[in-house]
Amino acid sequence: MPSPLILINLKTYNEGTGHRAHMIANAAQIVAHESGVTIAIAPNYIDLHPISHHFMIPVYAQHVDASEPGAHTGRITAEALRTAGATGSLVNHSECRLTLADIDAAVKALHAQKLIAVVCTNNEATSAAAAALAPEYVAIEPPELIGSGVSVSKANPEIIQRSVAAVHGIDPKVKVLTGAGIQSGECVKIAIELGTDGVLLASGVVKSKEPGAVLRDLVSQL
Amino acid sequence: MPSPLILINLKTYNEGTGHRAHMIANAAQIVAHESGVTIAIAPNYIDLHPISHHFMIPVYAQHVDASEPGAHTGRITAEALRTAGATGSLVNHSECRLTLADIDAAVKALHAQKLIAVVCTNNEATSAAAAALAPEYVAIEPPELIGSGVSVSKANPEIIQRSVAAVHGIDPKVKVLTGAGIQSGECVKIAIELGTDGVLLASGVVKSKEPGAVLRDLVSQL
Amino acid sequence: MPSPLILINLKTYNEGTGHRAHMIANAAQIVAHESGVTIAIAPNYIDLHPISHHFMIPVYAQHVDASEPGAHTGRITAEALRTAGATGSLVNHSECRLTLADIDAAVKALHAQKLIAVVCTNNEATSAAAAALAPEYVAIEPPELIGSGVSVSKANPEIIQRSVAAVHGIDPKVKVLTGAGIQSGECVKIAIELGTDGVLLASGVVKSKEPGAVLRDLVSQL
Amino acid sequence: MPSPLILINLKTYNEGTGHRAHMIANAAQIVAHESGVTIAIAPNYIDLHPISHHFMIPVYAQHVDASEPGAHTGRITAEALRTAGATGSLVNHSECRLTLADIDAAVKALHAQKLIAVVCTNNEATSAAAAALAPEYVAIEPPELIGSGVSVSKANPEIIQRSVAAVHGIDPKVKVLTGAGIQSGECVKIAIELGTDGVLLASGVVKSKEPGAVLRDLVSQL
Repeated sequence: MPSPLILINLKTYNEGTGHRAHMIANAAQIVAHESGVTIAIAPNYIDLHPISHHFMIPVYAQHVDASEPGAHTGRITAEALRTAGATGSLVNHSECRLTLADIDAAVKALHAQKLIAVVCTNNEATSAAAAALAPEYVAIEPPELIGSGVSVSKANPEIIQRSVAAVHGIDPKVKVLTGAGIQSGECVKIAIELGTDGVLLASGVVKSKEPGAVLRDLVSQL
Repeated sequence: MPSPLILINLKTYNEGTGHRAHMIANAAQIVAHESGVTIAIAPNYIDLHPISHHFMIPVYAQHVDASEPGAHTGRITAEALRTAGATGSLVNHSECRLTLADIDAAVKALHAQKLIAVVCTNNEATSAAAAALAPEYVAIEPPELIGSGVSVSKANPEIIQRSVAAVHGIDPKVKVLTGAGIQSGECVKIAIELGTDGVLLASGVVKSKEPGAVLRDLVSQL
Repeated sequence: MPSPLILINLKTYNEGTGHRAHMIANAAQIVAHESGVTIAIAPNYIDLHPISHHFMIPVYAQHVDASEPGAHTGRITAEALRTAGATGSLVNHSECRLTLADIDAAVKALHAQKLIAVVCTNNEATSAAAAALAPEYVAIEPPELIGSGVSVSKANPEIIQRSVAAVHGIDPKVKVLTGAGIQSGECVKIAIELGTDGVLLASGVVKSKEPGAVLRDLVSQL
Repeated sequence: MPSPLILINLKTYNEGTGHRAHMIANAAQIVAHESGVTIAIAPNYIDLHPISHHFMIPVYAQHVDASEPGAHTGRITAEALRTAGATGSLVNHSECRLTLADIDAAVKALHAQKLIAVVCTNNEATSAAAAALAPEYVAIEPPELIGSGVSVSKANPEIIQRSVAAVHGIDPKVKVLTGAGIQSGECVKIAIELGTDGVLLASGVVKSKEPGAVLRDLVSQL
């Protein structure tokens, strides 16, 4: 079984921007090295290039537009992500929803650049639909767990299990991340036991005064 | 084999609004009666209720919002469509794209009202994804055929065949409509032979001076 | 001084749809007749045409698209509103935001059909900007008052006064509605004293068991 | 009279990304130094920080989101632009339209970071509306001139003059850029004579094999 993925979304938190993004990346690199677990981060666009070059951990964009290079002011292309050194990108995060046509085009644009696509979804049906687009990962963010402080293991483990089954029913090669309700190493362990291949989390790490300690806890039961 | 569906989208064409929508509905009802083929129309919101009540043919909305009844100014709910007498609704038309989450919610909202969902898509991958949401119909509108005047049978029959296969690979109960490249009864016949369950068309009927004659031609080879 | 306008937005509330929309329209017509105050309602698209024809009060759409008649599936045009008998339309409601370019195009499309434009805004600066587009009305909905149950007179009368001044500084012919924080006839009176030409309200009337009684209270101090 | 501004939008052209963005910035810096004219560039997000630090010319973002730092995945904040060394940002470019409320919030977010706002508009009315939001610049992009290859001086100089008058009628401190129809130094000269304070252009410089030569021509008649 491959190592699970711990993917930290820095969003546009002040605590995850500029030198503080570098501090989190540094903590992630250290804990990844200690534990052997893959820890990746998704900084804002401005920090993407420097963090990709200063650290050995995988770096993801938070969003990519479906458009090709050209007359598309204010957009971020897969080409730009690749030249910045990114490993891949989130697509269709709950805070940055895309049309179905654009999700498909974004996945294809990432793949044309040999980048990894992590498509975010909100339930079993949309997870199955996303799997039909053949991304590397589907990240399930049940709305009732986003930012709730409620652990997925206590709240609603069935939604994760059913979504994993739905995704693998469409395409067993697509991996699944648990994208909400992760508070601790215990939650990560349960998420993996429920059949997922890792977790997507944000404020729990980013807003912590000791990101390294939080990351150590998250990987402690793997 | 059930009768195919001929679904006429009136869009917001002047030629498909008000009394001219009624004339097209009347022609559709006559040709449907003559031929035994199901002909449905999708008028604008204003004409939906009167046309549903004046004619016996199925009437679809052109769009439905994912929102529940409540504080949602300017939206159109599945509840409102049902009370207007609609049979179902287009969802995610190429001129009215929705997020994946909203397509899923719109299909569920239609089903909660016992209405039929026709989800529009643009290629093989998005057709498969839409099928995972379990609508009654997926309508494939290949962008290279929309408004092109090019017949699907001559241009690119493979995209239709592959999309039908992709949809049925996900869920064989989901029916498929050909949503672009239909010019004539010959095109309709070929679309059905390619495995689809009907066609979605617009300007060819709506902008014709003789909608009845066009409709008669469309069903002539079924 | 012309009579103030009381504009009731039915949104997509179940309590403001179908026959219940007709009941509210009927109550509005009776109270308008009794009081001499202009009371208008904005029903959903489906109810727009029947209500326009069954009642003598002004009827507004909740939204209008900027697009011309044509290949615009799922849109609602100013032409369709006019043929439905509408008096005008809300534009850019806080629940249905538009781009600046589309607000301008919607106002122009309404005016081309001799319809009245009520552009909604959220603060002093956007009220001034909206006034530059020359609609008949700007309706200010301060976000801190929307759905708050807090009366504009107690919360923040200055924002109304400053917005009226900002609008009239741009174009004194543009009238101003208070679009949030209206709970009672006392609030309406204060809103008028603050320089506005009427009020835009929703749930207070729509969700009431006795819309007629609420409307009578609203106009009681004019 | 202050020096006019020549602002080059690199969009997401391949020719304006990565090392080619640096080459254009270098050419801009040389020509600005030679001529005394202010030449600024707007690269994509990834190139914003390195170009701001390697060159002395003003650097603008192509877009900024209205949101504050926080849980806003995939967005670009004014705070991030400031820490990247930006001078300001385009807002509401024709390829990246925003709601009126978001334009206002973006201008305020830029000003809170001491950054310059360049709000793009499409006609006389929206230019006046934008001026009411008090940005430093309004950049008028008449749709009929965008990417047309037609010079503003030959096509429709009145739209520029009327828009300048409309902007200054609202707020004489707001400067105006001509945002389309600029092909040559002759066009720049005419744009200035029509009352604008500079030009916004893109492909003419970005897609040229010799950006320096094009820039020299653009400033040649100032």
